[in-house]
Amino acid sequence: MIRSLYYIPGQPIRKNIPLKEFPELVQNQQGLLWVDFIGEPPETCRPILQDFHFHQLAINDALQETHIPKLDDWGDYLYIVLNYMNAEDNGEAWNTEVDELDIFLGKNYVVTHHDHRVSAVDETWEGCHRDERNLQAGADHLLYRIADNLVAGYMPAVEKIDGAIDQIEDQIFDRPSPRTLERLFGLKRVLVSMRRILLPQREVLNKLARDDYQVIDPKDRVFFRDIYDHLVRLHDLNESLRDLVGGALDTYLSVINNRMNEVMKTLTIITTLFMPLTFVTGFFGMNFFEPHGTLNSWTSNTGFDVVLAINVLLPIGMYIWMRRRTWV
Amino acid sequence: MIRSLYYIPGQPIRKNIPLKEFPELVQNQQGLLWVDFIGEPPETCRPILQDFHFHQLAINDALQETHIPKLDDWGDYLYIVLNYMNAEDNGEAWNTEVDELDIFLGKNYVVTHHDHRVSAVDETWEGCHRDERNLQAGADHLLYRIADNLVAGYMPAVEKIDGAIDQIEDQIFDRPSPRTLERLFGLKRVLVSMRRILLPQREVLNKLARDDYQVIDPKDRVFFRDIYDHLVRLHDLNESLRDLVGGALDTYLSVINNRMNEVMKTLTIITTLFMPLTFVTGFFGMNFFEPHGTLNSWTSNTGFDVVLAINVLLPIGMYIWMRRRTWV
Amino acid sequence: MIRSLYYIPGQPIRKNIPLKEFPELVQNQQGLLWVDFIGEPPETCRPILQDFHFHQLAINDALQETHIPKLDDWGDYLYIVLNYMNAEDNGEAWNTEVDELDIFLGKNYVVTHHDHRVSAVDETWEGCHRDERNLQAGADHLLYRIADNLVAGYMPAVEKIDGAIDQIEDQIFDRPSPRTLERLFGLKRVLVSMRRILLPQREVLNKLARDDYQVIDPKDRVFFRDIYDHLVRLHDLNESLRDLVGGALDTYLSVINNRMNEVMKTLTIITTLFMPLTFVTGFFGMNFFEPHGTLNSWTSNTGFDVVLAINVLLPIGMYIWMRRRTWV
Amino acid sequence: MIRSLYYIPGQPIRKNIPLKEFPELVQNQQGLLWVDFIGEPPETCRPILQDFHFHQLAINDALQETHIPKLDDWGDYLYIVLNYMNAEDNGEAWNTEVDELDIFLGKNYVVTHHDHRVSAVDETWEGCHRDERNLQAGADHLLYRIADNLVAGYMPAVEKIDGAIDQIEDQIFDRPSPRTLERLFGLKRVLVSMRRILLPQREVLNKLARDDYQVIDPKDRVFFRDIYDHLVRLHDLNESLRDLVGGALDTYLSVINNRMNEVMKTLTIITTLFMPLTFVTGFFGMNFFEPHGTLNSWTSNTGFDVVLAINVLLPIGMYIWMRRRTWV
Amino acid sequence: MIRSLYYIPGQPIRKNIPLKEFPELVQNQQGLLWVDFIGEPPETCRPILQDFHFHQLAINDALQETHIPKLDDWGDYLYIVLNYMNAEDNGEAWNTEVDELDIFLGKNYVVTHHDHRVSAVDETWEGCHRDERNLQAGADHLLYRIADNLVAGYMPAVEKIDGAIDQIEDQIFDRPSPRTLERLFGLKRVLVSMRRILLPQREVLNKLARDDYQVIDPKDRVFFRDIYDHLVRLHDLNESLRDLVGGALDTYLSVINNRMNEVMKTLTIITTLFMPLTFVTGFFGMNFFEPHGTLNSWTSNTGFDVVLAINVLLPIGMYIWMRRRTWV
Repeated sequence: MIRSLYYIPGQPIRKNIPLKEFPELVQNQQGLLWVDFIGEPPETCRPILQDFHFHQLAINDALQETHIPKLDDWGDYLYIVLNYMNAEDNGEAWNTEVDELDIFLGKNYVVTHHDHRVSAVDETWEGCHRDERNLQAGADHLLYRIADNLVAGYMPAVEKIDGAIDQIEDQIFDRPSPRTLERLFGLKRVLVSMRRILLPQREVLNKLARDDYQVIDPKDRVFFRDIYDHLVRLHDLNESLRDLVGGALDTYLSVINNRMNEVMKTLTIITTLFMPLTFVTGFFGMNFFEPHGTLNSWTSNTGFDVVLAINVLLPIGMYIWMRRRTWV
Repeated sequence: MIRSLYYIPGQPIRKNIPLKEFPELVQNQQGLLWVDFIGEPPETCRPILQDFHFHQLAINDALQETHIPKLDDWGDYLYIVLNYMNAEDNGEAWNTEVDELDIFLGKNYVVTHHDHRVSAVDETWEGCHRDERNLQAGADHLLYRIADNLVAGYMPAVEKIDGAIDQIEDQIFDRPSPRTLERLFGLKRVLVSMRRILLPQREVLNKLARDDYQVIDPKDRVFFRDIYDHLVRLHDLNESLRDLVGGALDTYLSVINNRMNEVMKTLTIITTLFMPLTFVTGFFGMNFFEPHGTLNSWTSNTGFDVVLAINVLLPIGMYIWMRRRTWV
Repeated sequence: MIRSLYYIPGQPIRKNIPLKEFPELVQNQQGLLWVDFIGEPPETCRPILQDFHFHQLAINDALQETHIPKLDDWGDYLYIVLNYMNAEDNGEAWNTEVDELDIFLGKNYVVTHHDHRVSAVDETWEGCHRDERNLQAGADHLLYRIADNLVAGYMPAVEKIDGAIDQIEDQIFDRPSPRTLERLFGLKRVLVSMRRILLPQREVLNKLARDDYQVIDPKDRVFFRDIYDHLVRLHDLNESLRDLVGGALDTYLSVINNRMNEVMKTLTIITTLFMPLTFVTGFFGMNFFEPHGTLNSWTSNTGFDVVLAINVLLPIGMYIWMRRRTWV
Repeated sequence: MIRSLYYIPGQPIRKNIPLKEFPELVQNQQGLLWVDFIGEPPETCRPILQDFHFHQLAINDALQETHIPKLDDWGDYLYIVLNYMNAEDNGEAWNTEVDELDIFLGKNYVVTHHDHRVSAVDETWEGCHRDERNLQAGADHLLYRIADNLVAGYMPAVEKIDGAIDQIEDQIFDRPSPRTLERLFGLKRVLVSMRRILLPQREVLNKLARDDYQVIDPKDRVFFRDIYDHLVRLHDLNESLRDLVGGALDTYLSVINNRMNEVMKTLTIITTLFMPLTFVTGFFGMNFFEPHGTLNSWTSNTGFDVVLAINVLLPIGMYIWMRRRTWV
Repeated sequence: MIRSLYYIPGQPIRKNIPLKEFPELVQNQQGLLWVDFIGEPPETCRPILQDFHFHQLAINDALQETHIPKLDDWGDYLYIVLNYMNAEDNGEAWNTEVDELDIFLGKNYVVTHHDHRVSAVDETWEGCHRDERNLQAGADHLLYRIADNLVAGYMPAVEKIDGAIDQIEDQIFDRPSPRTLERLFGLKRVLVSMRRILLPQREVLNKLARDDYQVIDPKDRVFFRDIYDHLVRLHDLNESLRDLVGGALDTYLSVINNRMNEVMKTLTIITTLFMPLTFVTGFFGMNFFEPHGTLNSWTSNTGFDVVLAINVLLPIGMYIWMRRRTWV
C-alpha cells in the first residue's frame, strides 16, 4: 500500500496524492510531503523513489532488507534505517521479529518504506490528522515523532521480558528443570538480538543529535538528543536484564549442582550404612554354621508375614520420602 | 513539599518564598535562590518549572524518573541528573533502591527535584541555615555541596557490603550452603547496580571539572575535580568488592567440589572394601556346601545377641561419624 | 594463466594483449588495462609486475601468500590484498580454505593476482565482456565490481553454516553425542577464521570509502561505502552465528549435565530402595534360624520356575526401559 | 615525626629546621628544602602545609588516606600521590599492606607525607646526606630519586610471589589439597591489588615524563621516563604472574577432576566386577536347593579359618593399595 | 666478544677496529661503523658505549636485561630494544628463552649488544661480508636487515608449535590423559609469552615505519613497514594458535566429561540390573523356607564346577571388555 499526505500551512491536508504529482510538490519549499510505502514490492517502489532523485545505492538499500540501523548523508537528503522489534512469548519460546524502517528525509518531505505495518508509523500518521501541529514543525520534526514512537515501542517488550525473568527466578528454587534452562537461553537470545539493534540505533540518533545536516534544523537537535537518552536508558535496561538472566543461569546451575550433591550424599550415606551390615549378615549366612540357638519363633509364619510387610512397605515409604525431596 | 530559600549578601535568609515571586527573584543577579521539590506530583511542579523558562524536554526529564546520571548544557542553565542509592540488608536479601535527584543550576539559582527525602539535600539545606558561607560562594558552590554530600553517602553502603563479604567468606569454609550462594549472588547484584550509577555519575562530575560552562566559575572546577576523585575511588572500591565476591564465589564452588570429591571417595572406598567381602560370604552361603565344622557356638543365642548388637550399633556409629564430617 | 583486456572508449575490447605491450598501454590515460594472473609461478609474474614499476616490497607481498587484507598507498597506485573463503562441509568436518587476491590499482589499469580461480574475478571478467559499461566508469569502478562480487561470495557460506547450526540444535535435545560437540567446535573454528578475514577486510573498505587516494575518484567512494556496509552486516551475521554456536555449546553441556543428573538420581533411587531390603533378606538368611513355618509351597519346583522367570525377565524389562530413556 | 633538611649550594646541609622558618626558606630560589612528615596526626600537619599556601583540597587529600596514585597540577607546585606495597607471606596467608606517599613538589622544595616509615624515603634521605649531588640537581631530581627507590621496592615482593607460585605448582601434581587452592586464591588477590596500584602509578609517571609542568625541568623528563619503563616492566611481570596463577588454578581443577575420574572409574570397575558374581552366589544360596555334592571339606574348620583370614586380609590389602593412590 | 666492521664506499671493509678508534670513525659522515657486543660483561661495555656519548640511562638499559621491546628517541641516535625467542620442545616440556637485543642506531653507525649469540645478527654480519650492498644503503638499512632476520626467526618456532598442536589434537580423541593437559598448558604458556614480546615489538616497528626520526631516511620507512606487516601476520598466527590450543583444551575437557558420563552410565546400568535380582535371590535365601523341590542336580559337584567357572571367567571377561573401552 502507498499512502501519502501533503500539508501547506493554512490549507487542509491533502491525502492520497497521485504518484505523478510528487516531483512537483517536492519543489514547493513551503509544503511538507509524506509518502509511506507499506509492504509494496520493489518493482512498484523503485520508479517512485527514482522520481525523488535518490541515489541508486540508497534505493537498493531501502528495497533490500539489511537489518542494520544506519544513517547516510546524501547532502540534500538523509537516508536512515531504523529497526523495530516484536518479541512475543508463545508459552513455548520467544518469537522475535526484527523489521526495518527505511526513511528518506528531505528538507520538505519524508519518505518511509517498510514491509509490514509499523505501529509507530501508524500512530504518527494518525497524529498528523488529529493535530496539524505535528506537521507545522517541518520534516525533521516529523522524523522525530516517528523515531520517538518507534523507540517507545520497545518498552512493552522489555517489560514482558522482565516479568518472564521474575517468573523463572521463582521456578528455579522450587522445581528446576531443563525446561527452565531452555527458557533462560531463549530470553538471553532475545536480549542479545535486542541489544544488537539498540546499539547502532543509538549511534544513528547520536549522529542526528550531534552532527550538522542540511535537512535538520540545529534547533531541533535537542529532540533527537532526547530520543538518544531514551535509547541509552533502554540499553541500560537491556544490560540489567541480561545480567539478571546471567545470574539466573548461574543460580540454576548452582541449584542443580547442589541437588546433585544432595543426591550423591544420600547415595553414599545409604551405601556406607548398609554395606557393612550386609557383609555381617552374609558372614553368618555361610554354610560353616548350623543353627544352634532356640530362635524358632523368628522363622514362624507370623515372622514371615512381618518380613513380607517390611519388604513391601519399606520401598513405598522410601519412595514417598524421595518424592517429597522432589527426586522422582 | 516545596521549600525555598533566598539569600542576598548582607540580608537575612528568606524562607518559604511565595511561588509567584520566583521569576522576579531570579532576575536579581546578586541573590541566590534555592527551590527544593520533595515528592511533589508533576502537575504541581510543571508550572513552577516553566516559570524558570526551562526547556520542555528538560522539564519532562525532571518529572519522569529516568535513573541515568547525565548533564545537559542548556546555555544559561545546566540540567543535571544525579543518583543516590540505599542498600539495606534485611537479613534475607539486599534491598537496593536507586533514586534520582534532578538539579537545574542557573547563574543565581538552584532548583532540586526528588521523589523522596534525600539526606544529602537535607544536610546541605541545614548547613545553609547554620552557616551562610555555604551560600556566599554562589550557586555552583551550592551544587558542589549537594554533590559532595551525595557522594559521601555511598560510603556507609560500601562498608556494610564489605562487612557482609567478610562474614560470608568465613561461612564458606565452615558450613557452605546454597544460602551462602544466594547471599553472594545478592551482593553481586547490589555491586553491579552500584557500578552502573557510579560510572555515569563519574562522567557527569568529570564534565563539570573539565568543561567550560556559563554557569560554573572556572575557579570552582577544582571542587568538582575533588568529587570526581572521590567517585574514582568509590569505583575502585566497588571493583575490589566485586573481585572479592567473585573470588568468594569461586572459593565456594571449589569448597563444594572438594566436599563432593570427599563424599565420592568415601563411597568408593566403602564399596571397594565390602563388595569383595560380600562376594566371599555369598560364595560360602551357596547350597553346595553342608556345615561340617564344629562352630556351633557361633550360632548360639549369645552369638545372635552380639550380631544384633552389631547391626544396631554399627549404623548408629557411622551416622555419628558422618555427622561429624557435616554430611548429614 | 595470464589474461588481459584493454578498453578504449569507442573501440572494441582487445583481449590477450602481448605482455610487452603493457608498459605502452599504461601510458594512454584514456584506456583501461586489466591484467589477471591466475596461479602463475612467481618467476613468471615478477618481470611483468616490474614493468609496471611497482615497488619491490609490494611485488614481494603479492607473490607470497600472506593472508591478511591490507591496503598500501604507493601514491600513483594502490596495493590491495583481499581474502576470499570457501567453507565446505564434507559431512565429517568443515574444510575452510582462505585464499588471497592481490590487486594493484592504478589510474587506468588494474592488475589482479591469485593462486586459484576466484569466482568473483571470473564473474567480473565475464561481466566486462557482456556489458562495456563495467569498464566505462574507470579502474576504480572495476575494483568496486570485483570487491562487490567477492564480498557477495561470503553469503552462501554463511547460509550453509546457519543451516548446519539449526540442524545441530535439533540434535542436541534428541540425542546428544560427542560427535555433536565435535561439529560445534568445527563450526566455531570456521566462524572464528571467517571473522579474522572479515575484520581487516572491512577496514580496507573503510579506508577506500573514507580516505583520499590519487587513483580513486571521490565520487566513487559511496560505492566502496556500500561494500563496507555489506561487510558490517556480514560481520554482524558472523557474530550472531557465533552467539548461536556458543549458546548451542552451553545448551549441549547443560543437556549432558541434566542427563548425568538423571542417571545419578536413578542410581541413588535404586540403591536406596534395594540396599535396606537386601539387608533384611540377608538378616533372615543367617544360620541362627531354622525354618519353622509351613511355607513349603514357596520352594516347590513351580516356585523355582517363577523365580527363574523373574530373574530372566526383570533385567530384560529394565534394559528396554533404559533403552527408551536413551541410556544405552 | 617531622624531619627537614635545607641545602644551598656551597653550604653544609642544615637539618631539623624550626618549622616557622619554612616560609622564608621557600622564598630563596637557590636553596632546596625537603620536609618529611612521618605518621604525624592531621592537626599537626595542617598548619605547616598551610604555610606553604597549598590549596585546601590538596591538603585534605594529603591528610586523608585515599590510596589512589594521582597527579594534580596546581601551577607552581604539583601534588602527587604514590603508593607502596608490602606483601608478606606469614606461612598461612599473604598480608598485603598498601600505603600512601603524598608529595608536594615545588620549584625549590619537596614535602613528603606518609603514615608509616617508607624505606624508599629513608634511603633517599640517607643518600642526600651521604652524597650532596642528590640535592644539587634540584627538587624534581629529588622526586625522581624517591620515586625510583619506591618503584625498585616492588621487586622483592614480585620475586617472593614468583617463588611461591613455583612451590605451589610442584604441590599440585604431588598432593593437591583445598589448602593449595586457598593459597592460589591468596596469591591472585595480592597480584590483583598490586596491579591496581601499578596501573595508575604508571599513569602518573607517564604524565611526569610527557607533560609540561612549571616545576619540572624538561631535561629531567627522561628520568621519569626511565621509571615509567620500570613500571611498564613491573606491570608486565605482574601480568605474567597472574597468568601463571590462572594456569595453576586451571591445572589444579584439572588434576582434581582427573582424580575424581579415577575414583569413579574404580568404583564402577569394582561394582561391575562383583555385582554379577554376588548375584550368582545369591542364586545358589536360595532355599530351592539342598546340598547334594561331596564338598564337605570346603566347610570344615580349616576352610573357615582360610575364609576368616581372607575377610581380614582383603580389606587391609585394599586399604594399603588405596593409601598408595593417595585416596585416604 | 666485541667485533666491529667499518665501511667507506670504494674501500675494502675494515674489521676488528681497535676500540679507541671508534670516536674518530664516527665523525666521518661517509663511513658506516658497526660494533657488536656478544656476551660482554657490563664493565667492559660501559666505557666503550660512553665513548659514543650515549645517555647514561640508555646505557643502563642496554647493560641490564629488561626484556621489553621499546624505542627511545635521543635525537641524534635511537635506542632500540628488540627481543628474540627460542622455543624448544624437549619431549617433556617447552623451553622458552627470551633474550634481548639492544641496538643504538646513529646516522652512520650501529651498535648492537646481546648476551648470547643471535643468529639474526650473525646472518646479517656474514651478509655484509658477502655483499657490500648491505652496507651501502646506510645505517638505517642495516637496522632493517637485522630486524628482518630477527622477525623471520620466529617462523620455525611457530611451525613447531603448530605441529605439536596437531599431534595433541589427535591424541585427545584416542587416549586423553593428564599428560595431554600438561602439554596443552605448556603450549599455551609458550604462546602467551610469545604474544607478550610480539605486541610491543610490533609497536616499535610501527613507530619506525610511521614517525619522523633524524637517523632514519623517510624513504626507508617502507622497509620497516614491511617488517611491521610481518609482525602483524605473526601476531595473527599466534592468535590462531592460541585459539586452537583453547579449542583443544575445551575438547579435552568435553571428551573427559563424556567418558565420565559413559562410566557413570555403566555403573548405573549394572547396579540397576543386578540390585533387584540380588534382592530376589536374598529373599529366597531366608530361613523361612525349606527346600521342597527336586532340584538336587543343581547342587551336584558338576553344578559347583560350572558355578566356579562362571565366578572365574565372568570377571576376566568383564576386565577385557573394560580394557577395550580404555577404562583400565
